[in-house]
Parts: sequence; C-alpha cells; structure tokens
Amino acid sequence: MLKSRVIYRVIYGDTDNMGYAYNANYLRWFEMGRGEMFRNMGLTYKDIEARGYYMPLSHIECKFLSPVKYDDLLTIETTLDTSFKGGMKFSYRILDEDGNIVRATGSSKHAFVDKNRKIVRPPVFVVDVIKKSLAGN
Amino acid sequence: MLKSRVIYRVIYGDTDNMGYAYNANYLRWFEMGRGEMFRNMGLTYKDIEARGYYMPLSHIECKFLSPVKYDDLLTIETTLDTSFKGGMKFSYRILDEDGNIVRATGSSKHAFVDKNRKIVRPPVFVVDVIKKSLAGN
Amino acid sequence: MLKSRVIYRVIYGDTDNMGYAYNANYLRWFEMGRGEMFRNMGLTYKDIEARGYYMPLSHIECKFLSPVKYDDLLTIETTLDTSFKGGMKFSYRILDEDGNIVRATGSSKHAFVDKNRKIVRPPVFVVDVIKKSLAGN
Amino acid sequence: MLKSRVIYRVIYGDTDNMGYAYNANYLRWFEMGRGEMFRNMGLTYKDIEARGYYMPLSHIECKFLSPVKYDDLLTIETTLDTSFKGGMKFSYRILDEDGNIVRATGSSKHAFVDKNRKIVRPPVFVVDVIKKSLAGN
Repeated sequence: MLKSRVIYRVIYGDTDNMGYAYNANYLRWFEMGRGEMFRNMGLTYKDIEARGYYMPLSHIECKFLSPVKYDDLLTIETTLDTSFKGGMKFSYRILDEDGNIVRATGSSKHAFVDKNRKIVRPPVFVVDVIKKSLAGN
Repeated sequence: MLKSRVIYRVIYGDTDNMGYAYNANYLRWFEMGRGEMFRNMGLTYKDIEARGYYMPLSHIECKFLSPVKYDDLLTIETTLDTSFKGGMKFSYRILDEDGNIVRATGSSKHAFVDKNRKIVRPPVFVVDVIKKSLAGN
Repeated sequence: MLKSRVIYRVIYGDTDNMGYAYNANYLRWFEMGRGEMFRNMGLTYKDIEARGYYMPLSHIECKFLSPVKYDDLLTIETTLDTSFKGGMKFSYRILDEDGNIVRATGSSKHAFVDKNRKIVRPPVFVVDVIKKSLAGN
Repeated sequence: MLKSRVIYRVIYGDTDNMGYAYNANYLRWFEMGRGEMFRNMGLTYKDIEARGYYMPLSHIECKFLSPVKYDDLLTIETTLDTSFKGGMKFSYRILDEDGNIVRATGSSKHAFVDKNRKIVRPPVFVVDVIKKSLAGN
C-alpha cells in the first residue's frame, strides 16, 4: 500500500465567516497530498506533464468530520487505491497535527489525457513507477 | 421540486496550468448555486446566520464531465433534495451558457448548528420557508 | 475616459475568520473588472490570448477603506489609465451596491508578452480597439 | 531588523491558464510570511485574536518580477518595517528555493481593531513582544 503524509498550516485566507476552513480548500489540500505522494515515488506530477500527460479529475468527494480552524497544523495523508483501473484514485485523510483526530476523509479519481486532451490509458512510465514503489514497500 | 439557476463567468483566477478551471472552484460555484436558491425562497443564508444558525458541510461530491475554460459563461443549477432528513441536501449541475451541455454534477449535505456550534434539527423557520416554496411551485 | 462596471455577490468562500472578505479576493474582483472592460470594448482578454498575447501583471496595489462582508453586492468599477505607456494600467474602485460607498481602491499594471513569454509592445490590434473606444466615448 | 523565512510549494490550484501562479495567490503567501514572523516572535496572530484584537489590512502592494510556476519551492521572506506607526507594516520578498532570485516584492499595512471593530492603537502586549524580539536580534 502506498501512503504518504505532508503537513500544512491553515492560513487566514482558508477560513470563513463561521470561523472554520472553507470547504473548497480541502480540495487544495488533497492536491498537496497526492503531489507529495508522486514526489515520494520519485516521479513528480510536473514530470508527468513534462512528458505530455495530464491527469484531470473525473470525481472528487469529501466528508467533513470535525472543523478545521485558523492556524491548525494539518497532516494530509494520501493513499493510492490500486484497485482503480483506467486512471488513478487517491484516498485522503485530513488529520490534526498528531495524526490522531480525523478532520475529513475523501477521494479523487483522475483520468490520463495526452497533449491533445484525449483520454488515454495510464502511461507505462507511470505504471512502472507505481509498481516499483509498491514492490519497495 | 425546488430548482434555481444562476450564471457565473469563469475568471483567469479560476483556471490552472492545464487550461481548465481548477477543481476546487466548482465548490465555490455550488455555493453560489445554493445561495441563490435560498435567496429565491425569500430567506438568504445571511438571514439564517443572523438568526443564530450555521450550515456547515458534512459531505460534498463532484463529478467532472467535460472541461470548463476561461471566460466560459456557466449556468449553475441547484435542486433541493427534499428526501434528505436532519439537514439539507442540494444537487448541482454546472451547465454551459445555453444550459445544454452538462460540465459537472454534484451534491452537498449540510448540518444545522447553533451559535455554540452544536448540531441541531433544522430550525422551524427554515422548514416553513421550504414548505411554502414547495407549495408555491 | 474608458470606464466600466460589473457587479459581484460576495460568497462565503470569500470571507474569513474576522467576518470580512479576505484581501486576496479583491484581486479576483479587479480581474472581473478589467475582463468586463475588455468585453465592453469588443475585444475580450480571451481574444487577446487567442491571437498569441498574454498580459501578466507587473504591479498591483489595493487600499482597503471599509470592510466587505458576506452577501454584499459589490459594484466593481474599472477605469483605463491611458497615461501608462508600454503596457496597460487599470484603476479600480470597489463600491457598494448603490455605488455610493467606496470599499476599496486599487490599480494593476500589465505587460504584454508573446507566445514565447517575451515582453513586447502593446499589439496594434489592442491599441486600435482602445483608440476606437476612446473616440466613441 | 526582524526578518523571517518560510517555504511554500506552489500547487496546481495556484496556477493559471498562462502557466504562471495567479496574482491573488501572492497575497496568501504574504500572509504565510507574516504569520510565521509572528510565530517566531513567540506571539501568533491567533494569540492576538484570542486577546480580542484583529489586524485588518489597510493597504497591500505587490511587484511581480519573474514568473512563479507549478511545483516551484518558494522562500517567503518577511521583514517588519519598524518605521511604520499606528499599526504594522510588513515587507515581503518571494524568492526561489535557493533564495537567490527575487520573484516578487511587496508590502502590507495593517491597522489594529478591537472586538467592536473599532480602530485602536497597537496593543501594549504586541508592542512589547516586538521590542523584545528587536532587542534579542
């Protein structure tokens, strides 16, 4: 199982009138999480784009469990869901600083498209990196 | 069935490196949609807060069907899901200008909390406004 | 003098912990303002990009005069500063719904770059559209 | 002179259609910078709010020198401008990873308001912390 963690400090610009972090920001945190997972595998998402592929979202979901507030130090945990075929699926958990309290859970599904924005199968160099990372775990 | 529509012009700040609108912005558009629905019912979300209630999200979901680009004029269609109990659920469709092409679909579930951020049942004044709106349709 | 106005309803996602609109959002409103000004001149910024030019910011400034709150209906007023050479400069006023109270003022300076991101002089087709708009006023 | 540095990795959500980071995000980075400066002084902005004070912006400025791109690792450098009276002023530099290339410079001015949002003089406990930090340098 591929899993990675990255931390993020909630800024004022993330908060809203209620004193909580606004919902749309969780999707930015999910992106931070999967970006870090790619980096840990030795293949950044920037590399993937440099090789002519993009990974637009096809589906995103977030369940909000307990509020996130200004200045909270979040742990963003990302897990690769290897059962998903035809693209990539990530699962996320937004945790407090100590990793004990789950603030939110979620997932995102991504397709692969080429330079012409045509949907393609996952490129071999991506599949290989994932396989190697899974084997190395 | 309660349904409302509002339009939004995609700005440069909504776009990303791929030339598409970034995923988190769809959640802002969903908010525009339900805000307009409340307004059409004659009870703004601002009114609800002024009476001491907040409606934090408990769940959000978005399915991305076809890309949204810079300067697109979007139609955000919101439908109230009256089958959801204990809070409020909205369904959304992000449509093109003419309302013919569906760019994305989604939903959001909201709890009601009082000033002390304690979860409460939907306030009577909200339930009444919804009933009246449904009857008036 | 070229001047245009566009309205924007402040959403929850624009607000922060203090109950005011967060500062970075004003820059999005400035963009809405100049986008609308271009549209009124009959040449959208999208058109400019389609012809191979981009207008990155070189400088932005904002003076915050009185707070903007959730659900406020803002009037974004944009004025073209024709005294600025070598690029484009816009001045902005964020007004309340009636256009009487000034919430913020600001300005942005933009360079022109071509497809290779090289700084160039303002393209003739842009200069011509501005001249025509100024003459038509 | 009080100075602090914090790093930030540019995410996809920060980028725009041009392939650069969108201008409004720089203001979020400025906030990260001054938030970290407060933390380094031993008094977080959260503490200031907990004691009943807020620091709304009165003015912000940003000069864009060279583009910031996806996945760039930025160094956000914040300097306290002690010559500014009646509030607080911060200067910022957005640098590349190595701190050699200046991507942008800027500044922000802040007033102090109390719980009733009335402008007040800088609270003694804030002034003291700054003095102590300056003396300790």
